Amino acid sequence: MPHYNRILITGAAGRLGSQLRAGLAPLAGVIRLADREPLGPLAAHEEEAIFDLADMEATIATTEGCDAIVHFGGAPTEREWQVILDSSIRGSYHIYEGARKHGVKRIVYASSVHAIGFHEIGAHIPVDTPVRPDCLYGVGKTFVESLSRLYWDKHGIETACLRIFSSFPEPADRRMLWSYLSFADCVRLVTAALSAPFVGHTIAFGTSDNSVKAVDNSGAGHLGYHPQDSSEPFRAKVEASSPALDPLSPAGRYLGGKFCEMPHPDDEAKG
Amino acid sequence: MPHYNRILITGAAGRLGSQLRAGLAPLAGVIRLADREPLGPLAAHEEEAIFDLADMEATIATTEGCDAIVHFGGAPTEREWQVILDSSIRGSYHIYEGARKHGVKRIVYASSVHAIGFHEIGAHIPVDTPVRPDCLYGVGKTFVESLSRLYWDKHGIETACLRIFSSFPEPADRRMLWSYLSFADCVRLVTAALSAPFVGHTIAFGTSDNSVKAVDNSGAGHLGYHPQDSSEPFRAKVEASSPALDPLSPAGRYLGGKFCEMPHPDDEAKG
Amino acid sequence: MPHYNRILITGAAGRLGSQLRAGLAPLAGVIRLADREPLGPLAAHEEEAIFDLADMEATIATTEGCDAIVHFGGAPTEREWQVILDSSIRGSYHIYEGARKHGVKRIVYASSVHAIGFHEIGAHIPVDTPVRPDCLYGVGKTFVESLSRLYWDKHGIETACLRIFSSFPEPADRRMLWSYLSFADCVRLVTAALSAPFVGHTIAFGTSDNSVKAVDNSGAGHLGYHPQDSSEPFRAKVEASSPALDPLSPAGRYLGGKFCEMPHPDDEAKG
Amino acid sequence: MPHYNRILITGAAGRLGSQLRAGLAPLAGVIRLADREPLGPLAAHEEEAIFDLADMEATIATTEGCDAIVHFGGAPTEREWQVILDSSIRGSYHIYEGARKHGVKRIVYASSVHAIGFHEIGAHIPVDTPVRPDCLYGVGKTFVESLSRLYWDKHGIETACLRIFSSFPEPADRRMLWSYLSFADCVRLVTAALSAPFVGHTIAFGTSDNSVKAVDNSGAGHLGYHPQDSSEPFRAKVEASSPALDPLSPAGRYLGGKFCEMPHPDDEAKG
Amino acid sequence: MPHYNRILITGAAGRLGSQLRAGLAPLAGVIRLADREPLGPLAAHEEEAIFDLADMEATIATTEGCDAIVHFGGAPTEREWQVILDSSIRGSYHIYEGARKHGVKRIVYASSVHAIGFHEIGAHIPVDTPVRPDCLYGVGKTFVESLSRLYWDKHGIETACLRIFSSFPEPADRRMLWSYLSFADCVRLVTAALSAPFVGHTIAFGTSDNSVKAVDNSGAGHLGYHPQDSSEPFRAKVEASSPALDPLSPAGRYLGGKFCEMPHPDDEAKG
Amino acid sequence: MPHYNRILITGAAGRLGSQLRAGLAPLAGVIRLADREPLGPLAAHEEEAIFDLADMEATIATTEGCDAIVHFGGAPTEREWQVILDSSIRGSYHIYEGARKHGVKRIVYASSVHAIGFHEIGAHIPVDTPVRPDCLYGVGKTFVESLSRLYWDKHGIETACLRIFSSFPEPADRRMLWSYLSFADCVRLVTAALSAPFVGHTIAFGTSDNSVKAVDNSGAGHLGYHPQDSSEPFRAKVEASSPALDPLSPAGRYLGGKFCEMPHPDDEAKG
Repeated sequence: MPHYNRILITGAAGRLGSQLRAGLAPLAGVIRLADREPLGPLAAHEEEAIFDLADMEATIATTEGCDAIVHFGGAPTEREWQVILDSSIRGSYHIYEGARKHGVKRIVYASSVHAIGFHEIGAHIPVDTPVRPDCLYGVGKTFVESLSRLYWDKHGIETACLRIFSSFPEPADRRMLWSYLSFADCVRLVTAALSAPFVGHTIAFGTSDNSVKAVDNSGAGHLGYHPQDSSEPFRAKVEASSPALDPLSPAGRYLGGKFCEMPHPDDEAKG
Repeated sequence: MPHYNRILITGAAGRLGSQLRAGLAPLAGVIRLADREPLGPLAAHEEEAIFDLADMEATIATTEGCDAIVHFGGAPTEREWQVILDSSIRGSYHIYEGARKHGVKRIVYASSVHAIGFHEIGAHIPVDTPVRPDCLYGVGKTFVESLSRLYWDKHGIETACLRIFSSFPEPADRRMLWSYLSFADCVRLVTAALSAPFVGHTIAFGTSDNSVKAVDNSGAGHLGYHPQDSSEPFRAKVEASSPALDPLSPAGRYLGGKFCEMPHPDDEAKG
Repeated sequence: MPHYNRILITGAAGRLGSQLRAGLAPLAGVIRLADREPLGPLAAHEEEAIFDLADMEATIATTEGCDAIVHFGGAPTEREWQVILDSSIRGSYHIYEGARKHGVKRIVYASSVHAIGFHEIGAHIPVDTPVRPDCLYGVGKTFVESLSRLYWDKHGIETACLRIFSSFPEPADRRMLWSYLSFADCVRLVTAALSAPFVGHTIAFGTSDNSVKAVDNSGAGHLGYHPQDSSEPFRAKVEASSPALDPLSPAGRYLGGKFCEMPHPDDEAKG
Repeated sequence: MPHYNRILITGAAGRLGSQLRAGLAPLAGVIRLADREPLGPLAAHEEEAIFDLADMEATIATTEGCDAIVHFGGAPTEREWQVILDSSIRGSYHIYEGARKHGVKRIVYASSVHAIGFHEIGAHIPVDTPVRPDCLYGVGKTFVESLSRLYWDKHGIETACLRIFSSFPEPADRRMLWSYLSFADCVRLVTAALSAPFVGHTIAFGTSDNSVKAVDNSGAGHLGYHPQDSSEPFRAKVEASSPALDPLSPAGRYLGGKFCEMPHPDDEAKG
Repeated sequence: MPHYNRILITGAAGRLGSQLRAGLAPLAGVIRLADREPLGPLAAHEEEAIFDLADMEATIATTEGCDAIVHFGGAPTEREWQVILDSSIRGSYHIYEGARKHGVKRIVYASSVHAIGFHEIGAHIPVDTPVRPDCLYGVGKTFVESLSRLYWDKHGIETACLRIFSSFPEPADRRMLWSYLSFADCVRLVTAALSAPFVGHTIAFGTSDNSVKAVDNSGAGHLGYHPQDSSEPFRAKVEASSPALDPLSPAGRYLGGKFCEMPHPDDEAKG
Repeated sequence: MPHYNRILITGAAGRLGSQLRAGLAPLAGVIRLADREPLGPLAAHEEEAIFDLADMEATIATTEGCDAIVHFGGAPTEREWQVILDSSIRGSYHIYEGARKHGVKRIVYASSVHAIGFHEIGAHIPVDTPVRPDCLYGVGKTFVESLSRLYWDKHGIETACLRIFSSFPEPADRRMLWSYLSFADCVRLVTAALSAPFVGHTIAFGTSDNSVKAVDNSGAGHLGYHPQDSSEPFRAKVEASSPALDPLSPAGRYLGGKFCEMPHPDDEAKG
């Protein structure tokens, strides 16, 4: 007996969205897959919705009939302002308005380590530390964390903001030895957030059970997330191919890694 | 070589008391079993004492010759005021006076989640958070937590206040999926509190190693309690038979569950 | 235009009660004065109610028709257990039941420094620190602090628990140089608690604006209490007549002063 | 000798902007006044710039040649989403981009109590508590608080985010007895933020020295703001004309007052 | 009636020592003045002791017969290691050994802002924040703070560690506008530390009542120190003669000011 | 591929140093072993340096050519002041000067539980709690913790201060049941500190995974230390041969155990 009748997944064609498409199947009778791009052949329990999150009307319409939303859509990493504005800020507002108008009760949101990227690794911050974004992408994440807080406090819609660290097929550099979130653990984390008895407005960190713990996730214990993977099997390979980071550089000192040293994307865009 | 010569267990005929009767046997040469009701056939290492905690003289007399007291007696759940007053408040005072007069050095007290029942699940409170009882039964528990603090600070009697969550043969509803304390873990918890090298005045939460962690028990790490059971084996059964709780209702939002919505027991009593 | 139609003052014949009787007159159309002893000639705006707080029926009846209760009745200092039980514990329960049954919306309670008397002076504790009572009288105060928390969380009755330090005509010893609460400041504190726009469940410390600050009252800033007196005018007299306290003794080290060294009152009673 | 060569004030024609136009004159050689509406006759030390914050190019151009920006432009209170988006979110981004491109070193931003409006009055929150906006207007404020954090951490631009409570000619209701910020104190607060030796990224609360203190502003002590006004002179008038708030209602319990009960503005807009 | 029979002041010929020599006269029958240099003509209530703190035997001997020690001797600012070692570390150990051997009960120690100089101004640290010295002089101060903690916990000798900020005739630069401690306030601070009823082991910050508050001294409220001076009268002069500090430089960002940028003194010594 | 070219181990002939000599071999091409005593036959990857840490020139010279230092030299337990001064204080200063002059980037320092020995067991302190040394040896440890903080903040040299609890072949008494650090876990802890991607200035507690947890090590999670041993296998033996400690005595109540009751070593030395 699944927890939900119909879950909407945004960004369903993306790197993580496609993992969730498969992994969340047991949780709902129907999975509605949303993206700007076609989603390939659909399984019997799948529906698709092709639209842009910047389109308010389409976005709101797509939320109708859903019990829960797994909101992984929007810009996948640092982008110029106009992209962050349209996809992360405007698009997420549309999602929350859809939830409010159509009675969706719980949203699981893909926030990011880049919402708190300028905190020092050694500070071992808990989940309720004030935000310190390291880029516009991170600012967009903090916008949704704040917006969703309002929709819980005022409109009674639960949200789990999952601050995804580095979710890739495998760790690609030294930093990912502590920031790695395996795809399987990502599915476990979203599953926990969908299944937990009480979410209210929760912020959680998303990493695997790596040896080095850079943050304190205990404040999200009520989600019941227990990672089962680790970066350790990849250590030798990573250490052989990727240099150590200078602890005096922003990239080596802060949670956000090289994002803390990235130039402003609007300058890049013009270059 | 047991830790104690003689342990007194109050409430020894109760749901948990009878578990402790069996489980604590290795810790003492003699177990003195106290209750208002007869306790059945006694083993060689057992003594019995039948009396009412509201009887000061009898209670104090019963503590004589004991090294430690496991105080699980008193009202087992919400009751009208007169019962809470007589059994939990007056009865516990009698126990502490007995300990003081007869040189008992350590007490393990069955406090309850209902001493902090109005804290939100998502707040993940540590053990030293101010109390927020959810019923008269919970107020009675906070009275003993405060009284025992005095008896440590002033009279040098150690107490471990164990805030028992939901200790039943198995989890009976969705809330118990995170609040469950198996009988075996309950015995482990009391054993730890009796065996720890230093207790002073300690407050600890009592749950099994359930997947969802609603509170932060790290401040009681010096007890050395390590639960080994979990509610997971019961999840399917519970989810099939018990509805999800509304996160906007007190029963779904606060640690105390439905106790947060119970009417006043003195109104009930008259109804 | 007074804030209240009718305020009930318990303990109205006591040291502080008689100050409040005069000082709170501007706040209500009628002041109902309660005590076990006669209260002398009544002014036009005064009513009297003579009864014992241990009498549940009489206590509840007396609360009828009141908007607010200033609960300063009960044992005035350390007493043997039976007195604390009857007056502070049972009596206060009767008051809260009266408030619940008769729709009283706000209670101002005379708690005490002895609810937190075993905290060290140098710890500069804030108002939300866990209790550490220094005597049975202090345990009684913590009982009411806990009970009133329940009546706010569950029954919507506001309470300001005012932890009175040393409210006497003038400071009588060295400790009172920092713990002194002038009678006029005591009236200001209760007036603030009755007038504040939001109280919910608030704990506040009650001292005058003495030079030495042993605790941190900032967490009660929403009461709007601003002491205007100080122990300084009495310093020379006190230092001449009263010896310094040993900082290594409980009386010199902890907030509760000599109460931290008092023998158990039930032993005293029998002596 | 003024602190700055040229200060830009946005929203200069507004309620607070017009106060700052006069009050900040001593701090700069030139004050550049920006608004969508004409600003009336200019003094010798004044310049004007008429444009819409939603116009990126115009906004960035206007920041050129300025040492500091006092950013009080944007939606003045709750508005439908499109207005918040254009004026508060997009407009503020344009201001920060202007600052970055033109080397402006310090910005003073008019944030609001509505960024933290869902915190309880009695919680007495410090300045570094996580945000809890009570409306879209408040969400817009939190966006700028987050954006400005990035521009300090990454681009070295200082910002003082001043959470203005209720800045009106006089307190208009009971809540404003504690939330009131006189116009003169508002000028003092902005002056302090412009004059402080170190700002980095600072969040401060903006109220006058009212009797009731609902929040803890000590974490912004390095701004050197010392209010000199109070709501007390208006108390009698306000209490006579405005009803007390129910402490059980959101408007009576939370910092944001009636904003916590406002319907969603997009529903309103359609009504 | 003075508080003490005989107070020993070390560093009595120094900038602050000579202020204390005059200012502390009311507190003791005899003031014993210690320094390496002659102290000029002695008043009737004064004694002198000329020796080097590095001389253990002489230092211990000098403490005999004293009730209290005001320990302001040792290196007055950053010095090469050998000087810090001999005067601040070894010399202070000798003082504490003297106190232990001769029954001195309270010591007031001149610690320094340089014990916590690498904390950020905006962090508004309380007195119990971990140390972050900004130079060897600051490390020496933290050594004595730690040593004195031991002598309280184990040997019952009280110490107030006063972290002096900038105590000069007047503020000499922009930083001192917030770090200034007038000579009169310095005397008030030491007087408070000598007069407070309980000190135990207390750490306090020493500044005047300057407009900008860079740290949180509330945790030392039990000393009863109330500064009465301010840097404001000197503001115009200082701002005219001293440039603003760059908030991005260590000197502008951290409490220690230019000490945070000083080269290592042993390099200097060799230059 | 080892992490380092050459690691210097001080105190290499000592109880823990000899364990590290063997255990750290995989981490560096060359291990330079330093002690006052000869170190026995050297392996191919080993170098030796025989000198006294009190000799500044020799100590600094020995650090040349090293990438990392594992500083376990100095007094191994409580000693008279002159020994602590020469070996722990002066000797450690020499090590840090060597690191600064020769570009060593990371130091792992053997701090001790005795740096925080006067904190209560039940307080479950985190790693950033202010120090409370229990003896001169502990004061020496806090000196190096402070010194190394300066060398990170100002000179960019990373240090992990490992507060070793009780590292012996096996637990020797009841206290060691919770304070035990097996030799293998000690090697794991140092290895983690040498391998962690970011250390900055980190303080960590060093115990095995014993059942009783007396402190909170989560703040050092970024070291990636995971103990694999426990005192449990030794429990029966220890409990049979070693008495329980009185929880009212310093030795039973505080982290430092019997060190909290030790007489002053300089008295001992003279006895």
